[in-house]
Amino acid sequence: MTTVPLWTDEQVENSPRVKAVFDDIRAVRQTDFVNNFWRALANQPDVLERIWGQIKTVMIEPGELSPLVKELLYVAVSTINGCSYCIHSHTAAAWAQGMTPAIYGELQAVIGLASSTNAIVQALQVPVDPRFDVKG
Amino acid sequence: MTTVPLWTDEQVENSPRVKAVFDDIRAVRQTDFVNNFWRALANQPDVLERIWGQIKTVMIEPGELSPLVKELLYVAVSTINGCSYCIHSHTAAAWAQGMTPAIYGELQAVIGLASSTNAIVQALQVPVDPRFDVKG
Amino acid sequence: MTTVPLWTDEQVENSPRVKAVFDDIRAVRQTDFVNNFWRALANQPDVLERIWGQIKTVMIEPGELSPLVKELLYVAVSTINGCSYCIHSHTAAAWAQGMTPAIYGELQAVIGLASSTNAIVQALQVPVDPRFDVKG
Amino acid sequence: MTTVPLWTDEQVENSPRVKAVFDDIRAVRQTDFVNNFWRALANQPDVLERIWGQIKTVMIEPGELSPLVKELLYVAVSTINGCSYCIHSHTAAAWAQGMTPAIYGELQAVIGLASSTNAIVQALQVPVDPRFDVKG
Amino acid sequence: MTTVPLWTDEQVENSPRVKAVFDDIRAVRQTDFVNNFWRALANQPDVLERIWGQIKTVMIEPGELSPLVKELLYVAVSTINGCSYCIHSHTAAAWAQGMTPAIYGELQAVIGLASSTNAIVQALQVPVDPRFDVKG
Amino acid sequence: MTTVPLWTDEQVENSPRVKAVFDDIRAVRQTDFVNNFWRALANQPDVLERIWGQIKTVMIEPGELSPLVKELLYVAVSTINGCSYCIHSHTAAAWAQGMTPAIYGELQAVIGLASSTNAIVQALQVPVDPRFDVKG
Repeated sequence: MTTVPLWTDEQVENSPRVKAVFDDIRAVRQTDFVNNFWRALANQPDVLERIWGQIKTVMIEPGELSPLVKELLYVAVSTINGCSYCIHSHTAAAWAQGMTPAIYGELQAVIGLASSTNAIVQALQVPVDPRFDVKG
Repeated sequence: MTTVPLWTDEQVENSPRVKAVFDDIRAVRQTDFVNNFWRALANQPDVLERIWGQIKTVMIEPGELSPLVKELLYVAVSTINGCSYCIHSHTAAAWAQGMTPAIYGELQAVIGLASSTNAIVQALQVPVDPRFDVKG
Repeated sequence: MTTVPLWTDEQVENSPRVKAVFDDIRAVRQTDFVNNFWRALANQPDVLERIWGQIKTVMIEPGELSPLVKELLYVAVSTINGCSYCIHSHTAAAWAQGMTPAIYGELQAVIGLASSTNAIVQALQVPVDPRFDVKG
Repeated sequence: MTTVPLWTDEQVENSPRVKAVFDDIRAVRQTDFVNNFWRALANQPDVLERIWGQIKTVMIEPGELSPLVKELLYVAVSTINGCSYCIHSHTAAAWAQGMTPAIYGELQAVIGLASSTNAIVQALQVPVDPRFDVKG
Repeated sequence: MTTVPLWTDEQVENSPRVKAVFDDIRAVRQTDFVNNFWRALANQPDVLERIWGQIKTVMIEPGELSPLVKELLYVAVSTINGCSYCIHSHTAAAWAQGMTPAIYGELQAVIGLASSTNAIVQALQVPVDPRFDVKG
Repeated sequence: MTTVPLWTDEQVENSPRVKAVFDDIRAVRQTDFVNNFWRALANQPDVLERIWGQIKTVMIEPGELSPLVKELLYVAVSTINGCSYCIHSHTAAAWAQGMTPAIYGELQAVIGLASSTNAIVQALQVPVDPRFDVKG
């Protein structure tokens, strides 16, 4: 289900502002497929443009972290935030970036273990060791 | 603040079961420093042994992901779970594993962007594209 | 899917306690439509009565905040809590209270930006500026 | 730190509405100690009265679940919500209701394990087995 | 939807490592039914074995807390973590362990009230009373 | 505590890129005070520039929602995300934008009630009413 209409390609054609973003998505990703996230954002061109700009800057521009590691981090964040759509789309992106079954297994293991110790540390309200603090 | 006493080295000496874990932590990590997490868990030897065993298996045994990437994932999960202690300790671990300021900046950028799109996707309740689904 | 049966109007008719709440919902909202939330709560009349009483006090009684602003806040909270049903029902309520597409766009922008800075602040564990503290 | 002033007993004496709630808290709990939660809520008598009324109904009135089990559930919820104050106060309440170190250890174990499997299930987006669904 | 294939019984038969876990699940639970969680984990035998081992230790081995109370805690944690699958499966387990409608109503009441006060305490950033602190 | 150094005004003076943002913050807000959030972000000029640009676009540029309502939404999101720093700073901003004690009380009431019903709806896994769905 959804709370907004998802734009069809026909609707996109009739909005130059939305079309410009969709054209760029297709060019950058080198595929004609544009997933539902962008079709939902199309209802708000301001938000659409800003988010796509950020995705290009943060996820696509070359940096220190490989595209695969960035996708693994995206999956980890999306998992803890419980965003089903994001988990699906970024897991697919991770496979496309070369994730292997062994890597996926380790990702699950780290996410599961971190969530477990996070919860126990919270329950115990463990005070931060002074050596972990950076003096402001 | 804390909800349990933190064990001193003296107390650890008097509990063979806790001492065995602390000795192993010191040996595996090659440092005499044992952080508060373990001193809090010492109150429950069952939990202490199980968590330390999992940390060794998941975080220390060699695998496909580098120790640095595992720590970055741990920081990402801990950040979204809002566990202050865990953020401090695993950020310190990431620095120890070779995190550079540039990598740290990219980590922040991915965590921030993913949280932003997670929230917007949730607000819009975007339906999963069929191509992202794996048939059971 | 659900973990409890949803009460039909026939079942409601046979439980005076549940019927009294449903009658009041219909009278206050001036519609015959009673959404699934109440049909699920009907299994626990205590909880049903308490929640409906709170909704009337907090959301319906006139106050300083307009009904639209209250619904926007409800959507914001529900989004971060990841409650799909609540996002759907309170987004519908916001439209009914006069939300415009421009307002909805701004709501998404604030939710997205706040989630982003929340995550980065957590990652950095920024200490509260003394001037933001209210002395107890 | 706090975002509101905490009411002193002197201030409480000068507000009949707040005083009535504080008197009832002291009578019901049979102690002169009133913790900071109520001193913070005192700034909003409406909220103060409503929350105290709910606490009495849900936590204090006799029911099927023992006071200890209710406190354990409260700690579990507060831990996952990451509410430091609530974890501290309800862990103290659980000790007062007879929690033993063994029970506390089991509570930590369940919270830790559930958080771990929750995260892995989310990562895998496991579909609900039909037999777990209750037909509406 | 799911991000991994769910193993059929035929596939399980062909993997001795997975089969050993499934056989143990069936023996311990005394039922032929193995739910989707395990069929999803089957893709990662390491994770499968570790999680099943933990479930046996934490949830099945006799302890201070009854199996029903453990399931109620599991439901509470899963609810706040927003794990739909986990809520369904552990609510079913709670019914199987003897949960009554009255107990279920109280569980809902505690979860709802705790979430409410958690949020208000967070909004007010109430400082922990010194008497709730355990000196490390 | 913090995981990064907080930049002093002296350090800012020596980095033209960071200084440009700080100068703009001071000019736009018409105050010399720059809070710790920006002093922490200063370690990553990329992130600093991007976040400040977004804050100006989303929170400061005139729109349909008043600055006060935007701050209330920011507090609501920050509360559920459990970001202590963000709750403090945006509650202060809400007061500066004209929040009254009555409005603050209503904000707390809505946040508390929404969190309560969110949790109960999650526990019951209430299915979305068809009329709340927007056809994609």
